[in-house]
Amino acid sequence: MKILVLGGDGYLGWPTAMDLADRGHEVAVVDNYLRRDLARNEDVSPLFTLPNLVERCRIWNEISPQQITPFVGDLRDWTFVQQVFTSFTPDAVIHYAEQPSAPYSMLRRQAASLTLSNNLEVTANVIFAVREFAPDAHIVKLGTMGEYGTPNIDIEEGWLNVEHKGRSDKFLFPRQAGSLYHTTKIMDTDLLWFYTRMWGLAVTDLMQGPVYGIYTDQSERDERLLPHFAYDELFGTVLNRFTVQAVAGYPLTVYGKGGQTRGYLNIRDTLQCVRLSLENPSKKGELRIFNQFVETFSVNDLAERVQAAGKEMGLSVEIKSIANPRIEREEHYYNPAHTGLIDLGLKPHPLTTEVLTQIMEKITRHKDAIDVHKIFRGTKWA
Amino acid sequence: MKILVLGGDGYLGWPTAMDLADRGHEVAVVDNYLRRDLARNEDVSPLFTLPNLVERCRIWNEISPQQITPFVGDLRDWTFVQQVFTSFTPDAVIHYAEQPSAPYSMLRRQAASLTLSNNLEVTANVIFAVREFAPDAHIVKLGTMGEYGTPNIDIEEGWLNVEHKGRSDKFLFPRQAGSLYHTTKIMDTDLLWFYTRMWGLAVTDLMQGPVYGIYTDQSERDERLLPHFAYDELFGTVLNRFTVQAVAGYPLTVYGKGGQTRGYLNIRDTLQCVRLSLENPSKKGELRIFNQFVETFSVNDLAERVQAAGKEMGLSVEIKSIANPRIEREEHYYNPAHTGLIDLGLKPHPLTTEVLTQIMEKITRHKDAIDVHKIFRGTKWA
Repeated sequence: MKILVLGGDGYLGWPTAMDLADRGHEVAVVDNYLRRDLARNEDVSPLFTLPNLVERCRIWNEISPQQITPFVGDLRDWTFVQQVFTSFTPDAVIHYAEQPSAPYSMLRRQAASLTLSNNLEVTANVIFAVREFAPDAHIVKLGTMGEYGTPNIDIEEGWLNVEHKGRSDKFLFPRQAGSLYHTTKIMDTDLLWFYTRMWGLAVTDLMQGPVYGIYTDQSERDERLLPHFAYDELFGTVLNRFTVQAVAGYPLTVYGKGGQTRGYLNIRDTLQCVRLSLENPSKKGELRIFNQFVETFSVNDLAERVQAAGKEMGLSVEIKSIANPRIEREEHYYNPAHTGLIDLGLKPHPLTTEVLTQIMEKITRHKDAIDVHKIFRGTKWA
Repeated sequence: MKILVLGGDGYLGWPTAMDLADRGHEVAVVDNYLRRDLARNEDVSPLFTLPNLVERCRIWNEISPQQITPFVGDLRDWTFVQQVFTSFTPDAVIHYAEQPSAPYSMLRRQAASLTLSNNLEVTANVIFAVREFAPDAHIVKLGTMGEYGTPNIDIEEGWLNVEHKGRSDKFLFPRQAGSLYHTTKIMDTDLLWFYTRMWGLAVTDLMQGPVYGIYTDQSERDERLLPHFAYDELFGTVLNRFTVQAVAGYPLTVYGKGGQTRGYLNIRDTLQCVRLSLENPSKKGELRIFNQFVETFSVNDLAERVQAAGKEMGLSVEIKSIANPRIEREEHYYNPAHTGLIDLGLKPHPLTTEVLTQIMEKITRHKDAIDVHKIFRGTKWA
């Protein structure tokens, strides 16, 4: 299958591209280094120094039979979109090409505007490009569990049958998110659902929870292939931050009561979920939605697990509650369904102490690179 | 009250500004002539030749004690937004400043992109400007009944209590629209609801149905103050088109079975609804939603009423069903609530034969200006 990975330089995009190439798919990656530029401008940097996307492809192509082709450019620019889709006409597109940080989207007006424009315009261009250049291509879009927020009812997989005054209909599950970034993902879903109905697109929208982890099968072969691993407040997901904080002797910063519960998954499971979605495409005219996570944890659960794993490694890990800079419920009901990807064949990697110590041992080898000043910033929601 | 009317050059914006000035409010209007530019580029034009916004204000200010101040510029441009909000700091903002046409948004990729970017960026800038320069200002936003689409359940006013598996919560009423334009209004609501929760904005989102009519009290005083009255397929609302078609001897073009049912209102009632919303603001931290229409009609109902009114005027009006260029249900359940604005004091003007003949008599005086080639275009949804 010819697969275009949009946002192929990112934490998940690059490992996805390698995984798909390893499975024999013909893969091209597209990125404009937006994430790298934003990180540099905000004075944060990932734990590992990364080759650029063209270099990464060159390294990969030297050691692998199945090549990856890079395209560097901005998918908001239609001329570039045309160039990509006419030189590599895909059977499927995975769309990771968005500003991915909730705290970044809340930093200031310009950051919010960039998040809104970038994410919506790229999603629209992907839809228009598929219609014009690859009308049968399956679009796999990374959404987020954060689209649902924390409602007081069970969260179903994307859809809800509503009974009201003796009549019924099926709707997108109600969505109300906790950051502007998450709100742009709601809008992406609105946009994909509209054009799926109008033009018969085949779309899978993956409501993913926060991802953790470093290694995948491919980066274990050559460390130069490791992903963009962020540990700062802006771009680092919570468990990745906590593991780095534990190694650096920096207290685990729990926001408020720490009862905030989300569905988490290992980066290896992200790759499985995306591959299963691609290899079992949705039908034309169908917006298929999966809730993509493996286990739910509260922030307190995560902190305690990292503390326990640290103890096994001889680290003394402190947990510190701080005033919550976000506007969110700190204790809430949370019961999301997540059977769709299991039904497709997902074999979950649960979060064990062994998994945590493996991650923290890897981080320990890069301990000197950790700049503790970059961990916390206190980006406020209001 | 100091009121900023964004999109103050439009079909509804300009009559709203005059109405509010007449009621003693201090009014400024903002527009970038986007609607005029798009109409010119698409080779359509309104029935009346219009003075530009600065000229309209000059004419108004000559005959009225309460002045209207014009600002001409693009609200996507933050420098311009700053200039407007610092020189006229409002107590309330009415936001009409969007690309308002469903068929235009479906014309081609560029038109869709413009609709998406313009509508979302302007709404975001309005939110950011209120937060920065007028934090207590009430935002009144024109949404559309089209956000709800045509669900198989009763449409409530903006919100729905959902019971699910023994638990319950209150959500925005499910939304799925029939055009990209309407979908951008869903996204506007998503955005307003997010920032209302985060920043305690006071917002009223008016889910308006299609508006018809020409005269309001103010334009009856001087014909140079008439609104932008479009009769073409792109920018003309259905009843305005039908009345022009009847006068021009052009068959009333009903799409498909003609059972498409919507909630309609007279332009005079739009002015009442907006004024009532402004004079009875929502609370800080509240997104208040009203369904803004007076009566529901199917397209067949409208065609028959125009035919009957035409007969009274001695016109022979033909009704012609054509293949539906849109993707929509032609027969459907439709039962939307609309009590909120009545409770605030709205006194509806129902659609009577007298109202229709008044509109058609006015159009007859401009009959020579009607260019029948501009009425129909067959913009297809797919």
